[in-house]
Amino acid sequence: MSTMDDAERRAWAYLTAVAEPPAASVIELVTAVGAVAAADAVRSRKVPAGHLAALAATEARYATDTGERDVETADRIGARLVTPADEEWPAWSLAVLDRASTAVRGGGPLALWARGPGSLASLGDAAVALVGSRAASSYGEYVAGRFASGLSAQGRTVVSGGAYGIDGAAHRGALAAGGFTVAVLACGIDRDYPAGHARLLQEIAARGLIVSEYAPGTTAAKHRFLTRNRLVAALAGATVVVEAGRRSGAANTAAWATRLGRPLGAVPGAVTSATSVGTHAMIADGQAVLVADVDQVASLVAPDGEDPRGRAPTRRTDDLPPDQFRVVEALPAREPMSIDEISFRAGIPVDAVRRALAALDVETLVEEDGGLWRLRR
Amino acid sequence: MSTMDDAERRAWAYLTAVAEPPAASVIELVTAVGAVAAADAVRSRKVPAGHLAALAATEARYATDTGERDVETADRIGARLVTPADEEWPAWSLAVLDRASTAVRGGGPLALWARGPGSLASLGDAAVALVGSRAASSYGEYVAGRFASGLSAQGRTVVSGGAYGIDGAAHRGALAAGGFTVAVLACGIDRDYPAGHARLLQEIAARGLIVSEYAPGTTAAKHRFLTRNRLVAALAGATVVVEAGRRSGAANTAAWATRLGRPLGAVPGAVTSATSVGTHAMIADGQAVLVADVDQVASLVAPDGEDPRGRAPTRRTDDLPPDQFRVVEALPAREPMSIDEISFRAGIPVDAVRRALAALDVETLVEEDGGLWRLRR
Repeated sequence: MSTMDDAERRAWAYLTAVAEPPAASVIELVTAVGAVAAADAVRSRKVPAGHLAALAATEARYATDTGERDVETADRIGARLVTPADEEWPAWSLAVLDRASTAVRGGGPLALWARGPGSLASLGDAAVALVGSRAASSYGEYVAGRFASGLSAQGRTVVSGGAYGIDGAAHRGALAAGGFTVAVLACGIDRDYPAGHARLLQEIAARGLIVSEYAPGTTAAKHRFLTRNRLVAALAGATVVVEAGRRSGAANTAAWATRLGRPLGAVPGAVTSATSVGTHAMIADGQAVLVADVDQVASLVAPDGEDPRGRAPTRRTDDLPPDQFRVVEALPAREPMSIDEISFRAGIPVDAVRRALAALDVETLVEEDGGLWRLRR
Repeated sequence: MSTMDDAERRAWAYLTAVAEPPAASVIELVTAVGAVAAADAVRSRKVPAGHLAALAATEARYATDTGERDVETADRIGARLVTPADEEWPAWSLAVLDRASTAVRGGGPLALWARGPGSLASLGDAAVALVGSRAASSYGEYVAGRFASGLSAQGRTVVSGGAYGIDGAAHRGALAAGGFTVAVLACGIDRDYPAGHARLLQEIAARGLIVSEYAPGTTAAKHRFLTRNRLVAALAGATVVVEAGRRSGAANTAAWATRLGRPLGAVPGAVTSATSVGTHAMIADGQAVLVADVDQVASLVAPDGEDPRGRAPTRRTDDLPPDQFRVVEALPAREPMSIDEISFRAGIPVDAVRRALAALDVETLVEEDGGLWRLRR
C-alpha cells in the first residue's frame, strides 16, 4: 500500500485525470520534479523549461481538479492509487512500455488505480492474458473458461479486459476455480462497464483485482480500449487470443503483445467459424503460436514447465531499498542508459545512482554495457 | 499410352508382382538390362553381377508368373501399366523419391498400374493431396468436401487414398464439382477396397484415375498403406491433412510430404475435438502450415496465385526425345550425379548421355555442379 501523504495522493489523482493517457510528457514532468510540484506546475501553467509538452497535454482539463473527489471515491469503494513509488508497482512488467520503440506509441501509465485484494506485483510471468471477441461463440466461451480454470489450478493469474464474450468467460472460469483474476478496464475502476457485467466486476473487485490508468468516473471510449490493450499485453507474461473475427479488438491486444516481445498464443477453431478467422490468420502468419490446451498455454510463459507459484518476476525487487527500486524502475529493458539519464529519470543524485547500480549488479538485477546500464533479463 | 509390345508388357507386369514394393534392387536390374531381360533373369535366377539383391527381393514369388493374367485383367477393366518409358510417366513428381536421403526408405515405384481416363502426367503442382482420418468427424468430412470442390473449381486435381472418412469426402467433393480426382491405392487397381467404396471407386475409374504400384489382385495390407503414402505425397504438389487424431495414418503421409520437401498444410478444428489433435500438433510444431480455406491450400502449390490449368510440371518433358527423357528420369532432384552414373541408371551409353545433357542444359532443364548433374528446379 501507498505511503503517500494526502497532498501527494491528491496530486497524483489530479495528474491521472488532467491528461489523457498515454501522457509521456506528464510522466516526464513528474519524474523531474515530483508529483506535488508537477500538479502545481500544471495548475498554474508554469512548467520548468523543457516540459512545455506537459502544458499542451493538460490544456483541456487543467482547470478542473478532480483529485480530492477521486481520492474520496477510491476510499469509499476500497480502491487505491498505485504509483511508481509504491512497492506494488509492477515495474518489471511495465518496463517494456518504456522502450524507445514502444514509447513513441504510448509509453507506460503514469499511475494505476487498483481495486481488490490482489497485488499488481503478483503478475508478470505468473499471469496469462486471455482475450478475444465480445461476439464470441459458445465454443470460444467454453474454451476461455476451461483455459482460465486450468491456469488457475496451476496457480496462474488470468488477466483480461472485463468485456462480454471471451473476457467475461475467462474471468468467470478463473473465479470458478478459486483463482486470481485481473480485469484491466478502459474506464474508471468505479464504473460498471459493461453494465451487464456489474455483478462479475463486483466479484473480481472482491476476490481479484480491477485495474485502470483512468481516474474514477472516466467513461469507456473506443480510443481508451486501444490504449488499455497495451496494459493487458504488458501486465501478463503471455497473451492468448481465444477467438477473434476478421476485424477484432483482440487483434490490437495481440499486436501489442508482439510489439512488446511477449509470447502470443492463439486458439484454433473450425474453419467454418467466423470467430476463428482472426486466430487462424495469426497462426498462419506466424504471429501467434497455436495453443490447444492449458499446458501449451502455460508453456508460453514457462517453457520448462516450472511452477508459477511464488515466483512472480517482481518479487526480486519487492524488498529493495527505495533508491535501488527507483533505479530499477527507471531502467529500460533493452536499450542501455547512461548514469546521468538514470539519475534524471529516477530523480536520484548521480552518486546515489552509482551506489544503487553497484548493489543491483551484485544481485544480478542489472548489467553494464559500455558504461551504460540496463535491466538484466 | 504405352508403345510396348506384349512380351514387354508381360515382363513389366511380372516384375511389379514378383517383388514387394518398394523394390529398388529390381528397379536397378530393369534399368541396367531392360524389363524383358530382367524378367528372364529373375525367372531363371541368373542375374548379372552386382544385382544379387534382386534375387533376394524376388525369392518368395519368382516361380509364380502372373504377368499374362494381370495384363488380361487390366485389359478387361480398362486399366494400363505405365512404365518410366511411357510419356505418361510422372517423372518429375517421382524424382524426389530417388534422392539419396529418401531412396533408403523406399525409392520410387518400378511402374504404376492406372485405371481411368486421367493422365498421370497431369499431376505435379496442379495436384493437391487431401488426406486424413478414416474415423473423421462430420466437420472434417465437410471441410474435405468443400476444399476438394474448391480446388476442382480452380482446375486442380485432388489426390487421396480412397479410404473411408476424409479420403472419401475429398474424392466425392472433387467429383461433385466435375473435377479430376486420383485415388492412389494400397491394393490392386481391380479391387474394391474398402468394400463400401465400390461405387465411389467405380466413379473415380470412370472420370478420374485409380493408381497403384501393386499388381492386380494384390490385397490391401498395413505395410502397403505406409508404402502407398509416399506415392500420395510425391504425386501431389502439396499435401493437406484435414483431420488427424493423436495417432493417425495421415501423420505418415504428412511425414512423407515433409521428407520429400513438399509443402504440407493442416486444417485446424475445435481444440475439444479428438480428430484435430494431430493437425494441431503439426501446426504447433511448425511441420505444417495452417490452412483455413481453399485459397490458402492453393497457395501451398502456387504462392503467386497462378492458374494451374495447362501448366502441369511434366509438360516440359513430354516432347523430349527418348534419350533426353530417360536422362531426365534418371537424374535426382537434389544431389548431383556423375555422367557415368546417369549412363548406368538411364541405360544409355555415356556419349549419348553427354549429348542429351547438352541439349537439356540449353532447355534449362538440368544444371551442372562441378562436373556432376542434377535437375534444375
